[in-house]
Amino acid sequence: MGRQKMFLEKMSKSLQIRSLLLRQALAECLGTLILVMFGCGAVAQLVLSDGSHGMFLTVNLAFGFSATLGILVCGQVSGGHLNPAVTLALCLLGRERWRKFPMYFLFQTIGAFFGSAIIFGMYYDALWDRPGCFNVTGPGATAGIFATYPASHLTLLNGFFDQLIGTAALVVCILAIVDPYNNPIPQGLEAFTVGFVVLVIGLSMGFNSGYAVNPARDFGPRLFTAMAGWGRDVFIYGDGWFLVPIFAPFLGSFIGVVIYQLMVGFHVEGDARDKKSSEQENVRLTNVNANNSKEAMKDAA
Amino acid sequence: MGRQKMFLEKMSKSLQIRSLLLRQALAECLGTLILVMFGCGAVAQLVLSDGSHGMFLTVNLAFGFSATLGILVCGQVSGGHLNPAVTLALCLLGRERWRKFPMYFLFQTIGAFFGSAIIFGMYYDALWDRPGCFNVTGPGATAGIFATYPASHLTLLNGFFDQLIGTAALVVCILAIVDPYNNPIPQGLEAFTVGFVVLVIGLSMGFNSGYAVNPARDFGPRLFTAMAGWGRDVFIYGDGWFLVPIFAPFLGSFIGVVIYQLMVGFHVEGDARDKKSSEQENVRLTNVNANNSKEAMKDAA
Amino acid sequence: MGRQKMFLEKMSKSLQIRSLLLRQALAECLGTLILVMFGCGAVAQLVLSDGSHGMFLTVNLAFGFSATLGILVCGQVSGGHLNPAVTLALCLLGRERWRKFPMYFLFQTIGAFFGSAIIFGMYYDALWDRPGCFNVTGPGATAGIFATYPASHLTLLNGFFDQLIGTAALVVCILAIVDPYNNPIPQGLEAFTVGFVVLVIGLSMGFNSGYAVNPARDFGPRLFTAMAGWGRDVFIYGDGWFLVPIFAPFLGSFIGVVIYQLMVGFHVEGDARDKKSSEQENVRLTNVNANNSKEAMKDAA
Amino acid sequence: MGRQKMFLEKMSKSLQIRSLLLRQALAECLGTLILVMFGCGAVAQLVLSDGSHGMFLTVNLAFGFSATLGILVCGQVSGGHLNPAVTLALCLLGRERWRKFPMYFLFQTIGAFFGSAIIFGMYYDALWDRPGCFNVTGPGATAGIFATYPASHLTLLNGFFDQLIGTAALVVCILAIVDPYNNPIPQGLEAFTVGFVVLVIGLSMGFNSGYAVNPARDFGPRLFTAMAGWGRDVFIYGDGWFLVPIFAPFLGSFIGVVIYQLMVGFHVEGDARDKKSSEQENVRLTNVNANNSKEAMKDAA
Repeated sequence: MGRQKMFLEKMSKSLQIRSLLLRQALAECLGTLILVMFGCGAVAQLVLSDGSHGMFLTVNLAFGFSATLGILVCGQVSGGHLNPAVTLALCLLGRERWRKFPMYFLFQTIGAFFGSAIIFGMYYDALWDRPGCFNVTGPGATAGIFATYPASHLTLLNGFFDQLIGTAALVVCILAIVDPYNNPIPQGLEAFTVGFVVLVIGLSMGFNSGYAVNPARDFGPRLFTAMAGWGRDVFIYGDGWFLVPIFAPFLGSFIGVVIYQLMVGFHVEGDARDKKSSEQENVRLTNVNANNSKEAMKDAA
Repeated sequence: MGRQKMFLEKMSKSLQIRSLLLRQALAECLGTLILVMFGCGAVAQLVLSDGSHGMFLTVNLAFGFSATLGILVCGQVSGGHLNPAVTLALCLLGRERWRKFPMYFLFQTIGAFFGSAIIFGMYYDALWDRPGCFNVTGPGATAGIFATYPASHLTLLNGFFDQLIGTAALVVCILAIVDPYNNPIPQGLEAFTVGFVVLVIGLSMGFNSGYAVNPARDFGPRLFTAMAGWGRDVFIYGDGWFLVPIFAPFLGSFIGVVIYQLMVGFHVEGDARDKKSSEQENVRLTNVNANNSKEAMKDAA
Repeated sequence: MGRQKMFLEKMSKSLQIRSLLLRQALAECLGTLILVMFGCGAVAQLVLSDGSHGMFLTVNLAFGFSATLGILVCGQVSGGHLNPAVTLALCLLGRERWRKFPMYFLFQTIGAFFGSAIIFGMYYDALWDRPGCFNVTGPGATAGIFATYPASHLTLLNGFFDQLIGTAALVVCILAIVDPYNNPIPQGLEAFTVGFVVLVIGLSMGFNSGYAVNPARDFGPRLFTAMAGWGRDVFIYGDGWFLVPIFAPFLGSFIGVVIYQLMVGFHVEGDARDKKSSEQENVRLTNVNANNSKEAMKDAA
Repeated sequence: MGRQKMFLEKMSKSLQIRSLLLRQALAECLGTLILVMFGCGAVAQLVLSDGSHGMFLTVNLAFGFSATLGILVCGQVSGGHLNPAVTLALCLLGRERWRKFPMYFLFQTIGAFFGSAIIFGMYYDALWDRPGCFNVTGPGATAGIFATYPASHLTLLNGFFDQLIGTAALVVCILAIVDPYNNPIPQGLEAFTVGFVVLVIGLSMGFNSGYAVNPARDFGPRLFTAMAGWGRDVFIYGDGWFLVPIFAPFLGSFIGVVIYQLMVGFHVEGDARDKKSSEQENVRLTNVNANNSKEAMKDAA
């Protein structure tokens, strides 16, 4: 036991990374890997079993609870965003530094890339067992396991609106959950609550294009599929659909921030500020009174 | 960073609303918007995908957890009723002021109106993709995405009873959850528990007419559909069914209050009052004794 | 507001019941009513919609979460047993007085009776809409909405074992959750955890005969169906099956108590006792030492 | 009441086991029994009802929440591993003594054995009701109720990778949940969170071979089936598949430990160490200053 502890401590010391930003980025990477591994794994299970081992609800549950788990794994270190649109929202509100944004975006995408790679390895035999297993479109298509593609009824404009609304809804709920002036839940349950947000978005906004609402979760796996055998079709399909889940979520994030702040955030914040300043006012008045009485006493003396 | 903070603070100050009632009404509006957006979104996903991306269970889950999220978003500000029948119950018990009731009712209905409008926009292409997409009745009917309509087996009387019982059950459970003399759950978990109540009502009382149990949730979206293209049929269908989910929930709320108070509420309340008054009694007796002994001392002196 | 408060307080005082046992029994009655109303409501929704608005999973979810809600409604007052087999287990361990047992049993059964009556009223039209709506057996049978009946493959002996094991598993889990020497969960979450126990029992032990595991939940609704139109067949079917969910759960409760105590309970309890007595021992030894040193000092003096 | 209490205390004293390791092993045995009883019970319900009383989702829910319940039953006593791969991970990190590993492994396997035996007894009639009820392969096969078997598309190599990844994912999440330097959730909710981990693994990694990810959960029931009538086929099927869920999880556990420590663990641990040592440094410096000033005072004196 003694030697094991010494060995572990030595390992820990030599492998410890001291740059806080790099450690946070690594944690985001692992968190997003977990989100995408479990989430895309559930899509794979649904698609490859032709529905015998899954349904759309199981995909929703998996994405929801894997968001919870991803946040639990990295939340203490990096905040557990798992999503560049969430990082953007917190930067817009001045709660995270702007230089975190590109770093998190990069490592979240890397995590999503490797998360989908693990699922590719895990279901390798099952993939090859299907005729036309590397098709992007058509009945046996499997590219949708990893990245999102629009349903046949969807136009690009409606798709953009879909991603925008989905991300705005996500951001409004997350802001309410983490707002320091409006903290409604016991500390430590944020991860579970965010999981429920992701679950509900999947239950009600998943039919158009599979609710990416996350540029990293969509682009990382799409890049992987392009390299793993599905080819450049993954970028061409749907008249350049792949750009929608990258850009629409950022705009949606901005709109979500505006809506939450206008309808709840500014008011609870202002309320807290008013209370604080009125307390300070009281203190000042008390001091003034104290001084006055001192002076009065001096005068009297 | 400095300039951003200053800009945000300036925005916050200029946009802050100081009327507490208006702020509360706005928060209720956003909360109900979230409830209806996610809830009706799940119905839309079920109906428009013809069951491939949803089932009745996913609708129940979505309404349940979106109630949770709606309460989390606005609960700290307005109490998170999301439902005029709940506001009524709390007014009846003297826990909210009566003047809140019409204000909340109005803004809850406005929130529900816009929540359904967002879903209409989000699934616009999917709606137009269906033949007969603006029918209120018939096989391809889509009006049921937004407001509730009775099943073919239901008479108006049974439908009234259905809404009445559903709301009474909702109110009994909510009163137990928020009763200050009978507080069974850790602070901050009320929203989750109410979500489970809504989920369970959907699992067991949803077959007759889709468990509106909420005048705002039903009337707001119904008004929207009347304006968006479904026309006045939404009010005519079912011999004026639209009046049932408006009036039955209020009566159900009253009955729920009576049942809970008779079977649990009055007794735990009385118990707390008894304890308090017996403590005061003790204090008084102690004082009396103290006085007596003082007097005895005086006499002795 | 003032007059309303006064009126409510007057009501509260005049309607307050002062007998603790009666209040507890009333609370158990309401809790069991909620359990059976939501639980049997979910079965009704599944059966009457022919599966379009429910499946066996929704019944499991409804029974699980309605157990949670029932416990939340009455738990602070009566402990929230909702099940005579649970009351028996706690009496066997000396944690509840024996005289509570018949009182709770009676009121739990009354609550279950009225819970099923409410569901009967709620789905009255839907029941009459089915051909052969008051059949106990056969394809259109509806008696199974309220009470449990054995599947065709089940013998009475296996059915008895089924109910016995189900209740033993329930009791082992509940004892672990409420054991004062082995309290693993934050206070206030017991109700949720018991809900998960009931959910899991339904997921894995529901195929034989519908997991009553509760004499009150089964007998109350069975009595109601006998009176409401299904007739004496509800007692005759399955060679007197109705006796199994009454007697097997009590035996299962006893076996559950024995298993939990032998494998976990006695040891954690003994551990706590050992610690306490060793502390007392230390105190005594310290006193002895103190006395000795006093005596030594005396001797020295 | 008095006599009952005395009798219970006497029982408790005479049946109390004083060996801590044996008590812990017994608790693990009961916990794993509960995991396997509910988990395999859900598979039995799915298989024997031909899908009318279950689906793959219900199996996932049952395994997830029964892991929660198993941990709740034994967690305070033994830590609630329920899985030798988890015990191994904690031993590798020096958080549990190595001598616990074989003891826990043995009793976890015994618990799993009896858990499956109970389900065999419970569904005895339903099993005999099926033609070819003791087949290991083929359409009516039932051996999969108890132990896991690979899908037809799976090679041994991919199956090994499947079990390895599943266990690594399980271990990464569990380490994050119980890491003393990275504790993200309120105490007492670990059991629920681990349940969600098991649920998500089932939702996304269950199609290849049924996600054993636990040598005890797979080997105990397999041994039982070999003895109960399925015969030696349970070991032969799939070219010795039974070895994969025994050995792959241990390797996966090792890999999970390495990944978590490299990406999160070592850094948060090192951070805590750095803080502590810098505090000690401060204390030392303060002492030095104090000494210096003392010396200065001496010099001055």
